[in-house]
Amino acid sequence: MENMMDSPAGTVFEFKKVSYRYKQDRAAALNEISFAIPLGKKTAIVGPNGAGKSTLIFHMNGLFSSESGEILFKGERLNKKTQAELVRRVGVVFQDPDDQIISMTVKDDVAFGPTQLGLSASEAKQRAMESMELVGVTHLADLNPSELSFGQKKQVAVAGVIAMDTDVVILDEPMAFLDPSGQRHIQGIMELLITNGKTVIIATHNMQLVAEWADHVIVVKNGACLGNMSPRELFCEHPHLLEEANLDLPPVAQMFHGLWEDRAAMPIQIEEARRWIQAQLNAVK
Amino acid sequence: MENMMDSPAGTVFEFKKVSYRYKQDRAAALNEISFAIPLGKKTAIVGPNGAGKSTLIFHMNGLFSSESGEILFKGERLNKKTQAELVRRVGVVFQDPDDQIISMTVKDDVAFGPTQLGLSASEAKQRAMESMELVGVTHLADLNPSELSFGQKKQVAVAGVIAMDTDVVILDEPMAFLDPSGQRHIQGIMELLITNGKTVIIATHNMQLVAEWADHVIVVKNGACLGNMSPRELFCEHPHLLEEANLDLPPVAQMFHGLWEDRAAMPIQIEEARRWIQAQLNAVK
Repeated sequence: MENMMDSPAGTVFEFKKVSYRYKQDRAAALNEISFAIPLGKKTAIVGPNGAGKSTLIFHMNGLFSSESGEILFKGERLNKKTQAELVRRVGVVFQDPDDQIISMTVKDDVAFGPTQLGLSASEAKQRAMESMELVGVTHLADLNPSELSFGQKKQVAVAGVIAMDTDVVILDEPMAFLDPSGQRHIQGIMELLITNGKTVIIATHNMQLVAEWADHVIVVKNGACLGNMSPRELFCEHPHLLEEANLDLPPVAQMFHGLWEDRAAMPIQIEEARRWIQAQLNAVK
Repeated sequence: MENMMDSPAGTVFEFKKVSYRYKQDRAAALNEISFAIPLGKKTAIVGPNGAGKSTLIFHMNGLFSSESGEILFKGERLNKKTQAELVRRVGVVFQDPDDQIISMTVKDDVAFGPTQLGLSASEAKQRAMESMELVGVTHLADLNPSELSFGQKKQVAVAGVIAMDTDVVILDEPMAFLDPSGQRHIQGIMELLITNGKTVIIATHNMQLVAEWADHVIVVKNGACLGNMSPRELFCEHPHLLEEANLDLPPVAQMFHGLWEDRAAMPIQIEEARRWIQAQLNAVK
């Protein structure tokens, strides 16, 4: 593992040789995986389908216990009691919103999390109203979730997690099925969470989003961590790790990869690339 | 509507002022929409969430009847009988695979379509085996679909449609939740279908995929068609239509948009852009 993060201080999660296996007839889903995720930052977890990303999220949310190894949450090693508390301290928007939408109306569904945290019915309702407003789903409040499109269900699941007001928010493929304005809206909410001191972790296949958004990226394959660094370090200096994980460079980096002499300064974000193109075109004039 | 396609000859679908409304208290899902989709080509339907893309697909598949207007399939106006036949003649991979996976094992699920077409059990089994092989899900054949990941379910749904061997295949967000190698695999299958003379239609939010893949793109908003042209015409010459539909340019076109003098020759595909960048860097040397 190439690990660029020297200090384990200020981490929200630290995994130390954690293993997990679903059934005796399958390969290990997590295979002595070790990595750390910084507190208060934007982290992206990337990897091919079946790499173990969702299994990692189930561990971060306290749903699964590791077979071996240890997990530290904010520097403290988890025990049975603290693991059970994770479900209240770490909000997760799962890949498939049908896995977490359970109430008969959108507003009840969004209020479900705060109720589970022990808030009174009126407080939970207030929280639900605020977070539906923030996510932009207030107009759906009285509908049955089964009437919603996949994208709308995803937004409702986001509202449900926001309503819990947890310090850590994890989103599994947050942008799938959302149109550009829906994507920008979710990205705005993720920014707001960071501004409010939360830690935001996403799992995604969208490498351009990783390049534009993340502070930190963890590459997972076969239940192990192949790399743990900044998007710039990954895309410019260690693209071989992506190849190893059957992943692609972001579109912008694909255009420049192998052509740029000073690798570390290669454009990976759209605006960076645009500035360079503009300079080229101005030079010609 | 700006319509760049002059000839309605060789169309697989022609919609003429088609309207559809879900419930009396909602706006029309399709609002006198008119467009044509060419036969044997790759067409992408794009539009914001709620634009009417899925409703269009339900009409193309014969599930919905329009309130007014007419639909031609391969040049012939649909009547009740021919509309009912569409379900056998047009294969659809829906956005959410849970909407179409119904059997207790993957192999039975993939064989379900051919059985519905009237094939014998052994023929249907043979078809299912071939299409599972093609899509790369043979190793999942004996599993219960509920054990699969979202991406795997999507691949199983694709195999089920391939097994029906229809002339027209429609895929709603085919790439969502698939990793790059899974995406390349599905794109390879879409190419193979075209090579075999089929018509392939996708609905997607992935504009780079539209730029790289489609021959033809239809922009939908509020149940109406804003534009109907090639990706190059849309992204280079009519980007205002995307803005009207709250859509973004593909990442590559975002980098060049507004900087390029000969608009029609602006790079929109990764390889085009890469060739230009390489020429710039060589010129500097």
